[in-house]
Amino acid sequence: MYPKSLKNLIESFKLLPGIGDKTAERLAFYLINEEEEKTTFFAESIKEAKEKIRKCSICNSITDQEICDICNNHLREKDLLCVVEDPKSIFLFEKVGTYNGEYHVIDGLISPLDGIDPDDIGLEKLVKRIQKGNYKEIIIAVKPSIEGETTALYIKKIIEDMKIKVTRIASGIPIGTDIEFIDSMTLERALTDRKEIE
Amino acid sequence: MYPKSLKNLIESFKLLPGIGDKTAERLAFYLINEEEEKTTFFAESIKEAKEKIRKCSICNSITDQEICDICNNHLREKDLLCVVEDPKSIFLFEKVGTYNGEYHVIDGLISPLDGIDPDDIGLEKLVKRIQKGNYKEIIIAVKPSIEGETTALYIKKIIEDMKIKVTRIASGIPIGTDIEFIDSMTLERALTDRKEIE
Repeated sequence: MYPKSLKNLIESFKLLPGIGDKTAERLAFYLINEEEEKTTFFAESIKEAKEKIRKCSICNSITDQEICDICNNHLREKDLLCVVEDPKSIFLFEKVGTYNGEYHVIDGLISPLDGIDPDDIGLEKLVKRIQKGNYKEIIIAVKPSIEGETTALYIKKIIEDMKIKVTRIASGIPIGTDIEFIDSMTLERALTDRKEIE
Repeated sequence: MYPKSLKNLIESFKLLPGIGDKTAERLAFYLINEEEEKTTFFAESIKEAKEKIRKCSICNSITDQEICDICNNHLREKDLLCVVEDPKSIFLFEKVGTYNGEYHVIDGLISPLDGIDPDDIGLEKLVKRIQKGNYKEIIIAVKPSIEGETTALYIKKIIEDMKIKVTRIASGIPIGTDIEFIDSMTLERALTDRKEIE
């Protein structure tokens, strides 16, 4: 029913997560009414991002160079390494702005049930980096879940001999959230990890 | 902070309606992880849709030809014309599938408060088409609003001499909606336009 080229555009939008038939139609109709300058920018951005974006050869974050800006920054603290499961986490921490160490992106989390073993998430590269470096502390900043805990414990175990402090970011009740909305696992954790008021 | 090419992709998504910073980031991160085949299809679809989609020279609907499929279809009833305010309405009516006449897209609705006069929405072209055609009925299928009513009445008035029936699609309570959620203008209309049960 739709002209072929409009249909392709709608199908394109439907490739994206959380975008169904109706939204895809709405976005496609919107876009074809935009100025050509904007649609060209959009199309070029997709191509360029796909062509240029690659993994930093040191930390696996995304970059358009060989080595990302953070790994290249000699003002970052070289004895702190924060392990995340996704390049996006890095940008979130950087927005917060209080952390000034290095990062390392692992490729997801260990999940025996899904057949994801330690080998599958690139822990070997992480260990090599830690061995070569001079780190005092490894901060595990992955999602608090069974998979996250498993991964954190595994990393702790494989670098045990190196006598480096391994920490994980705190879990608990998000600031500003009513306790009644919190699941029992988080409540349990919040209780266990309680901190003395000083 | 983000690599330039990723930033451009995020900005591109933010051009779209209803897509803010967070969603744009999510979609951009998603897209750069997709296979190149898909991202190329996406980029090409945008370019092609913008290049090829144009207005049907008869009805103003969108098409990638000179004349759209509906205007070209000799099996459509040539004595029925449905006036809509947006090409999208046509595709919605076609999905319903019960209407088999022709369509005409006007360029929005008359709105004196916004400075949109009858001349601005292409009514001249509509009138010429009606004069040249052999229509028994013109169905006004625009949004029921002050602007919609004004536009419908204006069309009725300018073709008054032609002795063609002018109708508008029914307003009222949507099927399956509780009356308590209906605004009073719709309720009033639903009451006025009540139909005898036969």
